[in-house]
Amino acid sequence: MTTRDDGGVRDTPYLVVDEHQLESNLAAMASHAATLGVALRPHAKTHKTPEIAARQLAHGAVGLTVATVGEAEVFADAGVDDIFIAYPLWAVGLRAARLRGLAGRVRLRVGADSVDGVRMLAAAVHAGSDSAPPLAIAVEVDSGHHRSGISPERAAEVAATALEAGLLVDGVFTFPGHSYGSGAATPAAGDEAAALATARDALVAAGIPCPVVSGGSTPSARAADGGVLTELRPGVYLFGDAQQWELGTIEPATIALTARATVVSRRENVAIVDAGSKILGADRAAYASGYGRLLDHPDARITALSEHHATITFSADAIVPPLGTVLRVVPNHVCNAVNLVDDLIVEREGVEVAAWAVAARGANT
Amino acid sequence: MTTRDDGGVRDTPYLVVDEHQLESNLAAMASHAATLGVALRPHAKTHKTPEIAARQLAHGAVGLTVATVGEAEVFADAGVDDIFIAYPLWAVGLRAARLRGLAGRVRLRVGADSVDGVRMLAAAVHAGSDSAPPLAIAVEVDSGHHRSGISPERAAEVAATALEAGLLVDGVFTFPGHSYGSGAATPAAGDEAAALATARDALVAAGIPCPVVSGGSTPSARAADGGVLTELRPGVYLFGDAQQWELGTIEPATIALTARATVVSRRENVAIVDAGSKILGADRAAYASGYGRLLDHPDARITALSEHHATITFSADAIVPPLGTVLRVVPNHVCNAVNLVDDLIVEREGVEVAAWAVAARGANT
Repeated sequence: MTTRDDGGVRDTPYLVVDEHQLESNLAAMASHAATLGVALRPHAKTHKTPEIAARQLAHGAVGLTVATVGEAEVFADAGVDDIFIAYPLWAVGLRAARLRGLAGRVRLRVGADSVDGVRMLAAAVHAGSDSAPPLAIAVEVDSGHHRSGISPERAAEVAATALEAGLLVDGVFTFPGHSYGSGAATPAAGDEAAALATARDALVAAGIPCPVVSGGSTPSARAADGGVLTELRPGVYLFGDAQQWELGTIEPATIALTARATVVSRRENVAIVDAGSKILGADRAAYASGYGRLLDHPDARITALSEHHATITFSADAIVPPLGTVLRVVPNHVCNAVNLVDDLIVEREGVEVAAWAVAARGANT
Repeated sequence: MTTRDDGGVRDTPYLVVDEHQLESNLAAMASHAATLGVALRPHAKTHKTPEIAARQLAHGAVGLTVATVGEAEVFADAGVDDIFIAYPLWAVGLRAARLRGLAGRVRLRVGADSVDGVRMLAAAVHAGSDSAPPLAIAVEVDSGHHRSGISPERAAEVAATALEAGLLVDGVFTFPGHSYGSGAATPAAGDEAAALATARDALVAAGIPCPVVSGGSTPSARAADGGVLTELRPGVYLFGDAQQWELGTIEPATIALTARATVVSRRENVAIVDAGSKILGADRAAYASGYGRLLDHPDARITALSEHHATITFSADAIVPPLGTVLRVVPNHVCNAVNLVDDLIVEREGVEVAAWAVAARGANT
């Protein structure tokens, strides 16, 4: 329990956004993109929150990136009119109809990494009729993360198929997820630039204009030099998390989201708090030192995580917080933490001022 | 998308329960508990679903176990009248009032592993008045998992404090979470029995009756010999998951819950499906071979997991499913997967027959 300024109380665990730090982080990335001369299209999967989307747009974002049709529907309902679903959708069934509906009311771009996928997208918006709402694609290429994405040399195959099928082609994109590793951001940003340049050149050589060259990831966004990129799609930057902290992408003082958790058990140099994987998420990357970090105890480590217990191990000479103490826990991967709650509690100068609905929580389809 | 018998469609990813297999798993554990001569009090954190709780009670469960006051409230609202919150609650603020409310309407037992925690519980139900609803505690002891729980030798301190403070004492409990490891279930069940016997004997030696001796975990429940135990609290057994599969606790043919996911991208021996950590959970225990398993492709491994992508690596000579194929993915840790969805889709003989609300999803407080 923490006491609010209005005398109310709130049971732990819950997620808190520091509004001042959030604004600072939004401004910093907007400034970075402006300095590079690229458009900023933040990935809204991180926050899933219309209030935050509005703030990103107010800071100059050209539109949003999302991962699913469901996320796009939530943000379209909230008034966002330019959305990129950066995912190679397989557009059949209900999803096809939902996509056609979206394309009719926002400026919509969808990812594609196969000729067959593009044909499904075209069939979805046409739905057997000659008139179709405009739908743009961007060709996803693999820049070294080896997830989805066609090889950059083959990007024109997908783009040409899209044009033949009556779709628009915005350009090319990649997600350099291999930027998540110790010392990996700069090489990954180099891989990203090289892959995107190859893909762009392949389109141009095929006579297909390529106005959009879009890169992603919070680590690589910082390392990007702007060169080939026309657009950045970072997600985590607005909150930060323990992964970014441990990767060295951010300073812990800039972290804008923490879980508030109560010490419920303790022994020797260990405290157990009531935030587990059902509010922090269970992510633990190979490079992570534990299952999250303590904002006010940087030397402590979360050495085990259950659904409702985090086991915090303090150094031998540390004073372990007493039972009932409320601690600030930084999730390893903030995107998965946010997706576990219905509301983000917003504090200004330590005082609760709002609760923002995570309107796209669970929007997996 | 998969086609339903009624001609409807449903976009992937979503979680499906095989009703026949669920019933079989419920019956098997009920039979196991009856054979051991112990009460079954399943941990409802796994399913969070009133429909399933009703089925567990119909199979003879004496009540439910839950992890949070919020879960208890959901199941009390659904008519469950005997609930054990197996967690060392720190009962202050709203939580104290909520606990008092619950104790007034169901037979309530709460975990405790400290003298201070018990005093807070007593203060919560008394709330400054002489009349209080009855509240029972069970003393949590550490049997080797080293999470919460007092050492078994000291269990009587907590129990005696509870009696002095006007609470009831049901007995003792432990969670032998160290049963989750290769070959660990039988030794952990032995540790559990030994710790609980020590704790029970400590209470009895102090003149405190100890009718309840409660053990937990799906792996150790199977290995338990019943001896000291009067109650079992397994959670995962009703669905099964990839962790239990890889631990050898269950046969994969008994798995009753899978995520349906569509192949959206493929290359060489790799397929990418649209189920990621936002529907499977991000759990990956040290002993796990990957981020989940494929029910129909036991040789394949999920070698990487993002929020909306699982990277499935097939053996070099396997036929990789084509784009658009719907696969059945088994989450590593089913409790965290269920907590990510609003509904479980229920199939009987492969036909969708119901959607059950995961009513306690997100009930973290």
